[in-house]
Amino acid sequence: MTAIASYGRLRDRFARLAALEEASAILHWDTSVMMPPGSAPARGEQMAALAAVAHGMLTEPSAGDELAAAEAGAARLEAADRANLALMRRKHRRATALPSDLVEAMARACAACEAAWRDARRTSDFPAVQPRLAEVVRLVREQAAALSAATGLSPYDALMDGFQPGLTDARVEAVFGPLAAMLGEVLPAVLERQAAHPAPIPLHGPFPVSAQRALCRSLAERAGLDFAAARLDESTHPFCGGTPSDIRITTRYDEADPAQAILGVLHECGHALYEAHLPKAFARSPLGEAAGMAAHESQSLIIEMQASRSDAFLSWLGPQMLHAFGGDPATYAPANLARLWRRVAPGFIRVEADEVTYPAHVILRWRLERALVAGDLAVADLPAAWNAGMKELLGLDVPDDRRGCLQDIHWYDGAFGYFPAYTLGAMGAAQLFQAAVAERPGITAALAEGSFAPLVAWLAEKVHAQGALHDLDGLLAAATGRGLDPAAFERHIRTRYLG
Amino acid sequence: MTAIASYGRLRDRFARLAALEEASAILHWDTSVMMPPGSAPARGEQMAALAAVAHGMLTEPSAGDELAAAEAGAARLEAADRANLALMRRKHRRATALPSDLVEAMARACAACEAAWRDARRTSDFPAVQPRLAEVVRLVREQAAALSAATGLSPYDALMDGFQPGLTDARVEAVFGPLAAMLGEVLPAVLERQAAHPAPIPLHGPFPVSAQRALCRSLAERAGLDFAAARLDESTHPFCGGTPSDIRITTRYDEADPAQAILGVLHECGHALYEAHLPKAFARSPLGEAAGMAAHESQSLIIEMQASRSDAFLSWLGPQMLHAFGGDPATYAPANLARLWRRVAPGFIRVEADEVTYPAHVILRWRLERALVAGDLAVADLPAAWNAGMKELLGLDVPDDRRGCLQDIHWYDGAFGYFPAYTLGAMGAAQLFQAAVAERPGITAALAEGSFAPLVAWLAEKVHAQGALHDLDGLLAAATGRGLDPAAFERHIRTRYLG
Repeated sequence: MTAIASYGRLRDRFARLAALEEASAILHWDTSVMMPPGSAPARGEQMAALAAVAHGMLTEPSAGDELAAAEAGAARLEAADRANLALMRRKHRRATALPSDLVEAMARACAACEAAWRDARRTSDFPAVQPRLAEVVRLVREQAAALSAATGLSPYDALMDGFQPGLTDARVEAVFGPLAAMLGEVLPAVLERQAAHPAPIPLHGPFPVSAQRALCRSLAERAGLDFAAARLDESTHPFCGGTPSDIRITTRYDEADPAQAILGVLHECGHALYEAHLPKAFARSPLGEAAGMAAHESQSLIIEMQASRSDAFLSWLGPQMLHAFGGDPATYAPANLARLWRRVAPGFIRVEADEVTYPAHVILRWRLERALVAGDLAVADLPAAWNAGMKELLGLDVPDDRRGCLQDIHWYDGAFGYFPAYTLGAMGAAQLFQAAVAERPGITAALAEGSFAPLVAWLAEKVHAQGALHDLDGLLAAATGRGLDPAAFERHIRTRYLG
Repeated sequence: MTAIASYGRLRDRFARLAALEEASAILHWDTSVMMPPGSAPARGEQMAALAAVAHGMLTEPSAGDELAAAEAGAARLEAADRANLALMRRKHRRATALPSDLVEAMARACAACEAAWRDARRTSDFPAVQPRLAEVVRLVREQAAALSAATGLSPYDALMDGFQPGLTDARVEAVFGPLAAMLGEVLPAVLERQAAHPAPIPLHGPFPVSAQRALCRSLAERAGLDFAAARLDESTHPFCGGTPSDIRITTRYDEADPAQAILGVLHECGHALYEAHLPKAFARSPLGEAAGMAAHESQSLIIEMQASRSDAFLSWLGPQMLHAFGGDPATYAPANLARLWRRVAPGFIRVEADEVTYPAHVILRWRLERALVAGDLAVADLPAAWNAGMKELLGLDVPDDRRGCLQDIHWYDGAFGYFPAYTLGAMGAAQLFQAAVAERPGITAALAEGSFAPLVAWLAEKVHAQGALHDLDGLLAAATGRGLDPAAFERHIRTRYLG
C-alpha cells in the first residue's frame, strides 16, 4: 500500500478511535451530572469496555503496519499531515508500551481507590484509603517504567508527557525554583499592602440560583459559547467536558455567593472555546486536539484570571450584577469586586486559593508526586511530608488530612504528573494576555464593554487553531515570540497586587 | 480448550459487547433528552463507531471458534447455560449473516432518511422523502435476504425474528385475521353503546408541569421504579431507555391535559420494571435480556391498559389527582375518568388510538410492510395503499400524508417487522392480566389502594425473571398455561367496552 493510502487508513482508524473517545466523554459527563448513584458499578464496566476497545484499536498489528508504511513515504505528505502522522506515532508508542492487562488493572485500581477516597476525605481518614493508594502508586510506577522504556524519557517525565507533551521535570524545576523564590518574596509584601487598604464589603445575598443561572448563561454566550452545540449544567465538581461539537460545561451555585458560579463558568468557557476552535480540518485526528493540559489551563485562566478579573471587565460586570441581583450598589463597585475577587490569603485548599498562593499548592504536589513516582517517598509517609511542605511553603499548620493530602482527587484517580499544568497554565495565561493586549490594544476597551470578542479572536488564531502542532514552549513562542517566560507572570503579579 | 472454558470466554465476550450496547443506550437517551441540536452529526458518528465495534466483536473468527468449542461439549453445561449458549449462537448467526459494509450502509441510509422524514412529516411532503425511503427499503430487502439465507426463515420472518424471536408471518396472520373480523364486528357496537351513555366531562386545567411531574414521579415509585437506579425526564417522544441498572424513562407534559403524562409514565414503567427484574445471574448475557419486543409491550400495556385504566385503580387515582391539581371533583370521579380514558374513536393517528381501534392501525402497517419487503408494493405507491387501507379498516379518508403514511418513524428508521409487536403485546397483556388476577385475586384490591405490588410481583416471577428463555408463545404458556390466546383479548374488549 502507498504511503498516502496508509495515511488515509490511519485517519479513518483515528477518526473511529476519536468517536469512541467522544462516547466516553459524554458518558463521563453523564456520570457527573445525570447518572443515578446506584448505576456507578455498571458505568465503570461501560467505561472499561470502551477503554479496552480503544486500546485494542491502537495496538493491533495492522495499526503498526499502517504507521510504518505511511512513515516510509512521509515525504510525499503535506506538512500538516506529516505533523499529524508524527502525533499518531506518539499515541501508538504510548499505547503499545502498556500491556492491556496493566491498562485494565489501572482502571480497576483507580476506580476502587477513587471510591474509597470519597469516604476517606469525608471522614478525614487517610489510613482508610492508604492501601488502595499504595496499589495505585505501585501500578503508576509500573506504567511509568513501561512508558519510560518505550519513549526514552525518565519515568516521571513519561507521565508528564501524557498530560503535556514534551514537558520534562528539568523544565518544571527550572521554572518552579525561581517562581517559589519570587512568590516567597512577594507574598509578604502583598499581604502587607492589602492590610493597609480598606477591606472589601462582602456581597450580601441571597443570590437566587435562577438569577445566577441566567447571568452565567448570558456571560457564557458573551464569551462566545454557542448553545446550539453546548450545554451548561450543574455538578459537584465543575468541569468542561463533552466533545468539540457538543461542549458541556458545569458549575455549582451557592445562594450566599455568586462569585464561584460566575468566575467558574468563565473559567470553563476558556476551556470550551479552545475545544470549539480546534482546527476542523483535523477533527478526530491527533493534530486536531488541544496542545496539552497546561495549554488548556492557560485558556481557562486567561478568560477567568486575566480577562474577567481585570479592572476593565469588572467595571462592566458590576452593574450587570446589580441589575441581576439587586442590593447595595456599593458592593458591586468595580473596586470592591476587585478587592473581593483578588483577595490574597494563604489557605489549605488549592481550589480556593488566590493566584499568588496557588503556585505554592502546585509546587508542593509536584515535589511529592515525583518523589512518590521515584520511590523516594512511601505512601505511608505522605501526610507528614504534605504537612511539612505546607509549613515550609505557606507557613500553615495543616489541621487534618481532609484539608491536607486528601483534598484532591488526582492521585487517588491515578493522575500523576498533572499538577504542574495548573501553574504552567497560569504563567502561560499571563504571557498570552500581555502579548494579546500589546498586539491588539482594543482588547481592554472591549472588556470594559463586556465583550471578550477581540481577545477570543486573537486566541482562536494564535492558540486554538494550532491544535496539537506545538509543545507548550512552541505554542507560546509562535503566539508571543518567546517560549514560556516566567517574567510575564511575575509582571502580572507585581502589577496587579503591588502596582 | 474445553467447552466450559470456551463458554466462559463467550460470557466475557458477550459481557463486553453488552457494556458497549449499554453505552449506546445511554447515548441514545442523551440524544433524545440532553444533546444540543447542533451535535447530531457527531453523535451519528459515535453511534456508528459503537455499532461497528459491536458487530466486529460478534463476527471476528475467534467468536465462531469459541461457539463451536462450547457447543461441542454443551452436554456438560447447566440447562440455563445451554439456553444462553443457544441464544449466543442466534446472535452470532444474525450478525455474521450481515456483511459489515451492509451494516454501515444501513446505518447511514437510515440516519439520512430519518432526518429527511422529520422535515417531510412537518410539511406533509411524502415525495420529499420517497427516494430516501426507497433506498432504505432496498437495503432492508438486502438485509432480509441475507438473514433469510442464514436462518432458513422467509425474508419477512427473518426481520420479525430480530424483534420477537420465533415470530412468523403465518402466526401473525392466524392471529390478526380473526382479530380484524372480531374488531370489525365489535367496534360499531362499542360506538353505539358509548353514544347512548353520557359524554365524559373534560378535565379542566391548567395542570402545572411541576404538579404533574411530582405526581408522575410518585406513581412511578408506586409502580416499583427505584430512583436510586433510574431517572424520569422529558422528551418529545416518550420512551424507556438506559440499561437494567440505569433505567431512563421519559414523558412529555401538556398543561391542558395530564392524561398523557400520567398514563405515559405508567406505560414506560411497565417497560422499566421488565428491565429491572431481568435475571441478574445472566446480566450482560443473551439469556438475561427481555424475550422480545412483543413481550416488552405486553409489560408496558399490562401496567397502562390493564391495571391503570381499571375501575379499581381509577377509584384510587381520581382522589390523588384532585389532591394534586384541585378543581372540579366531578371530573376526577372514577366513572368520569373511565369514560375519558377509555373513549373509543376511530382516528388517523396510531399513538393516539384507543385500544379497540389500535389493532387496525397495526394490521394496516403489517400488511403494507410485508408487501414492501416482498417487493409487492413500490414505495411510490405507499400513500395510496395506506389511504385505501384506512378506508377499509376504519372507514376514514386520510386527509394528508402527515396523518397517513408519514406519521410513524419506524420505516424511515429502517424498522420493518416491528409493528406486529404492539398488538401482540396488547393481546399478551390481556391474557397475562386475566391469569394474574385469577391466580392472585388480591391484585384488584391492591390496585384500588394504589398498589401495583402484587401484580408486579407476579409479573416479576412469571415474566421478568424468565429473561429470554422462551419465545412469546412459550413465555405466555409458562405464565398462563397456554400460548398466545386471542380469546383473552376479545374477553377484555367485550368486558370493558360492552360489559
